[in-house]
Amino acid sequence: MRGAADHVRSPFVASFDCLTFLTDYGLEDGFVAACHGVASRIAPGIPIIDITHLVPPGDVRRGAAVLAQTIPYLPSGVHVAVVDPGVGTARRAVAIRAPGGIFIGPDNGLLSWAVAAAGGTTDAYQLTNGELWLHPVSATFHGRDIFTPVAAHLAKGTDISSVGDKIDPADLVSLPAPTSRVHDGEAEGEVMSVDRFGNVQLSIAASEAGRMGIGLGSTVVVRCGRRQLTLPYLETFASVAPGELVAYTDSAGLISLAVNAGDAAERLGLPPGAHVRLTVTPAAS
Amino acid sequence: MRGAADHVRSPFVASFDCLTFLTDYGLEDGFVAACHGVASRIAPGIPIIDITHLVPPGDVRRGAAVLAQTIPYLPSGVHVAVVDPGVGTARRAVAIRAPGGIFIGPDNGLLSWAVAAAGGTTDAYQLTNGELWLHPVSATFHGRDIFTPVAAHLAKGTDISSVGDKIDPADLVSLPAPTSRVHDGEAEGEVMSVDRFGNVQLSIAASEAGRMGIGLGSTVVVRCGRRQLTLPYLETFASVAPGELVAYTDSAGLISLAVNAGDAAERLGLPPGAHVRLTVTPAAS
Amino acid sequence: MRGAADHVRSPFVASFDCLTFLTDYGLEDGFVAACHGVASRIAPGIPIIDITHLVPPGDVRRGAAVLAQTIPYLPSGVHVAVVDPGVGTARRAVAIRAPGGIFIGPDNGLLSWAVAAAGGTTDAYQLTNGELWLHPVSATFHGRDIFTPVAAHLAKGTDISSVGDKIDPADLVSLPAPTSRVHDGEAEGEVMSVDRFGNVQLSIAASEAGRMGIGLGSTVVVRCGRRQLTLPYLETFASVAPGELVAYTDSAGLISLAVNAGDAAERLGLPPGAHVRLTVTPAAS
Repeated sequence: MRGAADHVRSPFVASFDCLTFLTDYGLEDGFVAACHGVASRIAPGIPIIDITHLVPPGDVRRGAAVLAQTIPYLPSGVHVAVVDPGVGTARRAVAIRAPGGIFIGPDNGLLSWAVAAAGGTTDAYQLTNGELWLHPVSATFHGRDIFTPVAAHLAKGTDISSVGDKIDPADLVSLPAPTSRVHDGEAEGEVMSVDRFGNVQLSIAASEAGRMGIGLGSTVVVRCGRRQLTLPYLETFASVAPGELVAYTDSAGLISLAVNAGDAAERLGLPPGAHVRLTVTPAAS
Repeated sequence: MRGAADHVRSPFVASFDCLTFLTDYGLEDGFVAACHGVASRIAPGIPIIDITHLVPPGDVRRGAAVLAQTIPYLPSGVHVAVVDPGVGTARRAVAIRAPGGIFIGPDNGLLSWAVAAAGGTTDAYQLTNGELWLHPVSATFHGRDIFTPVAAHLAKGTDISSVGDKIDPADLVSLPAPTSRVHDGEAEGEVMSVDRFGNVQLSIAASEAGRMGIGLGSTVVVRCGRRQLTLPYLETFASVAPGELVAYTDSAGLISLAVNAGDAAERLGLPPGAHVRLTVTPAAS
Repeated sequence: MRGAADHVRSPFVASFDCLTFLTDYGLEDGFVAACHGVASRIAPGIPIIDITHLVPPGDVRRGAAVLAQTIPYLPSGVHVAVVDPGVGTARRAVAIRAPGGIFIGPDNGLLSWAVAAAGGTTDAYQLTNGELWLHPVSATFHGRDIFTPVAAHLAKGTDISSVGDKIDPADLVSLPAPTSRVHDGEAEGEVMSVDRFGNVQLSIAASEAGRMGIGLGSTVVVRCGRRQLTLPYLETFASVAPGELVAYTDSAGLISLAVNAGDAAERLGLPPGAHVRLTVTPAAS
């Protein structure tokens, strides 16, 4: 039987199944729509997935984290990401090919964690071929004038080597990996992100923490600065009573701290970047 | 003449015209995009309509109200709704078929008003067939790992009976219907929701209130706790001068209170759930 | 070679490539989704681009500015815009054809700047043909019941003359153009809009200001009320150190004021509509 999916795919004869966008443009202006419009004029009908446009203005690290954690669930595509406080300056604009898709954006580290999550850099190019851009090119809206049109051309089948000069992947700007260390019975990390619910995601993989005995049923001691708190490691935030703290493995495989039906980030005063240490208390037997 | 609609429908050979999503995931993280990505990988090209992702975290009742009031205007589809404070606990995950579509989400009452609006339950199933899920299944993101993939498979044509065990519709969790009573010349109800404009929607159908003489041109007395206010019942908020209060029949057929060019919820201090009584003052003649 | 775009366009046999929406409906209710649903039921598969739904409630001027600045980047389409504080009153509902597409909304000036940007009015119609509407028509949600269904029918190929009575373009309500004057070595204008980043967009075109010598490298004096500040005119906000003020040509070709990595609107206390005068200081040589 020929499935519905085959029927749908056929009309769009392209190298990639979709364009995705992640920016700090917000939703109150027409910036995102201008990019959608530019993409639609070059590659009509291409599916577009908006990852988020609510990255805090200029917060490259937050953009990188959301992009990297979402990429594994997206179709193979051309991924445009723009959190670009240096737009219009000497920072390069790049296209990076990875096994999981092509990433386009400023060379400021924004793409680095996602590229790693997508299998690492295969080859990389600086966007220098102005024939693929929208003219006149503004100094402040490269998302509309450079990144999106290049991405739409690639989605339509233009070869990545046409976008500009090949560059050495080793020269790409990378964000430093978040601290994450398990040693001497202690897991050390930092707050990766805080989601809408106030859940505090740490940079410590649950699988790593498992090596030091942290897992379902453990009692965990969390230290942050001079503060210390003890909480159970359970399956989900709803495993404790409303208002109570809990540690659990979140949907990205990282250790997170939550308050059931509450806001853990607010309660604990733990912003992104805060340094945290975890130890496990042997279960009373 | 063969219409444009026929041409468009043909490529997507499916039981349903679209997927719709309603959640409390917010728009600042990548959660919604991960669901869109999972859906697109299973059912490429399926149209997706986002109802809202800004249900206040865990507010099942608000999610139920928005879903029920929007469903009558959506194409026949598979409707995924996730406001799920009990994710990862014993609460069931269900698929409910109604004449107006299939509803998928947690069995916590979220779907109940919408199912009623869509014609009532035809048959219902617990999601137990893990073959339709995304593995590994996280404990906290069933929207991505269970609800969306099941919905995408159904949209592609998988029969609903494949999702798991058939269950008795009578066993489904229902939210209590909002108070709404017309008796002894008084209409009694509660605040259903407050929209972006601050308009206060009551649970009293305008058609019901009509039975006690409330209608265009009436003067209405609203009582809430010890407070009491008198206001005209007119066609729309713009029927009164800016800053003035008015009652009117809203776009869902319910009685609403508004301040023209202002915020009635703020002015009246009426949050969702507040108990309200209406009487009509005989027009001076 | 037949391009991907041709393959995609073919299934949708229509006069227009897309529907676009701009409203003040917000994203927390189901209002936008109801419109999408109504459009999809009439014109299944038509691409929809949401410009923004976060126009401040009732702010016609802000809606007009965002629409006019985004339109040049959108595909030829049917553009629905609804910021409609007079919904349900005597204000007319109109469809205006311009070389760049058809605009549908209330006749309150909201469409006027965008129509001008799209080449000016070709012909205009009052929406009086109820056969194209969704019934029953509510008094407060013409976006769902009138504007969207009419737009979807036009997108499917219904001729614009079917929507209702032809009206004289001269009778359409226009917003007054923003102040913008260059004379006696001074450019006079007002704040058009403030974007998410706090950048302050003036109503003065960079090309106009160029006539009085304002351009890259100039030092500009900005006067607003009794306040006065001197700042450099450079390529982009990132041309100055973080925290410093700069004037630049923004992505709409207008002069804007920014604080690099900061919020200029907040720093300068310049809300939309504020009157501003610019002069240029001769560069020290």
